[in-house]
Amino acid sequence: MNNYTPKFAVILSGCGVFDGSEIHEAVCTMLAVEQSGCTYECFAPNTWQARTIDHYTGHAVAIAGDEDNRNVLAESARIARGNIKDLSEFKPQDFSAVVFPGGFGAALNWSDFAVKGAECDVNVEVRRVIEESYREGLVIGAMCIAPTVIARVLGKYGVTVTIGNDDKLAAGLEKMGAHHQKCLATEVCADKEHKIVTTPCYMLAGSLREIGDATRNLIDEMLELMDY
Amino acid sequence: MNNYTPKFAVILSGCGVFDGSEIHEAVCTMLAVEQSGCTYECFAPNTWQARTIDHYTGHAVAIAGDEDNRNVLAESARIARGNIKDLSEFKPQDFSAVVFPGGFGAALNWSDFAVKGAECDVNVEVRRVIEESYREGLVIGAMCIAPTVIARVLGKYGVTVTIGNDDKLAAGLEKMGAHHQKCLATEVCADKEHKIVTTPCYMLAGSLREIGDATRNLIDEMLELMDY
Repeated sequence: MNNYTPKFAVILSGCGVFDGSEIHEAVCTMLAVEQSGCTYECFAPNTWQARTIDHYTGHAVAIAGDEDNRNVLAESARIARGNIKDLSEFKPQDFSAVVFPGGFGAALNWSDFAVKGAECDVNVEVRRVIEESYREGLVIGAMCIAPTVIARVLGKYGVTVTIGNDDKLAAGLEKMGAHHQKCLATEVCADKEHKIVTTPCYMLAGSLREIGDATRNLIDEMLELMDY
Repeated sequence: MNNYTPKFAVILSGCGVFDGSEIHEAVCTMLAVEQSGCTYECFAPNTWQARTIDHYTGHAVAIAGDEDNRNVLAESARIARGNIKDLSEFKPQDFSAVVFPGGFGAALNWSDFAVKGAECDVNVEVRRVIEESYREGLVIGAMCIAPTVIARVLGKYGVTVTIGNDDKLAAGLEKMGAHHQKCLATEVCADKEHKIVTTPCYMLAGSLREIGDATRNLIDEMLELMDY
């Protein structure tokens, strides 16, 4: 047990499951961090959303380039109550861990995985944060579809992650060089060698209660890897 | 102890503390409901927001009448992952309880309390839901600034609510006919006679962890009043 209080960076990709961060996963993550006696700070890339979806109708109401499309940082700030920083300000030495909640924003705004799959490009700041965090020995957490971005950046190191039990998605991860481990909704996949912890959350979960459990398990395992 | 599973209606006012529902309060409420073994359904009025705030800069980017202003139901759907109904579809007989998370949406979109104070008007559907829920004996919960709307509709019955410890706000509530009880951030004010439970949440809270505790206390007290 170390005598410091771990600080988590929570990286957001917007505000809403269909075009940004999955709100339940983001809030439950932050809650689990505080309930462990730790602290967090929120970040998001200052970039435009790939698209904006009306979450009531499910229809796209704007796409990149449209005047009424939304900004990832401004929307993420809703989840953070305004207490958020531009991801370009992230310094790995300020944190013990970095965690990536899910939602389509991971595959649309952090990367274009939703369009290009295993060949996807990753937002330059998101890539920097993952690479620097890995190099500095931070524990990296990711849930739902977010492990695809981790795999795209760190696949070259043969990291192991989970996105649940979808064979097609798992094949995409393997194509990136990562290994895939099947997990149930609230189970965690702990790659102790690379200090990466992932969990399926809403890839498989059917209730908010399960998200509470999954994020609790994720943060517990991340703290375990910090020897906290 | 009754042998049924209480179902909660969670009423939303948008998605984000400065122009809609406070996201942490909304999610923690839904989580507490499920963790109690109960279920919930989300509703929001199908109306335009009074304003849309960039939560990163804090500036208004649209007001009522602007083409790029946002719809309360469409934004609330983000918190509900699309599983939400128009408030006009709410029937009190389908529920044991109805709960109103806070956020400025309560004082901007459900009512115009932020502009008119004690003389505020209440959205016609929000008023109907509160009146019918009260008449049908549902337990009513509200947090943060949302008790102002309850007080405006039910003040004539001399209900008791809390909005924390702000004397000016408390005076406004008394002007509406309600009684005010001072509470700490995570304490609940239980008006057992009128079956109304309120808690200050982010009127006073400084952390998400406190919101977890406050919503837990709120839901526990609401269940107590249902004899569950």
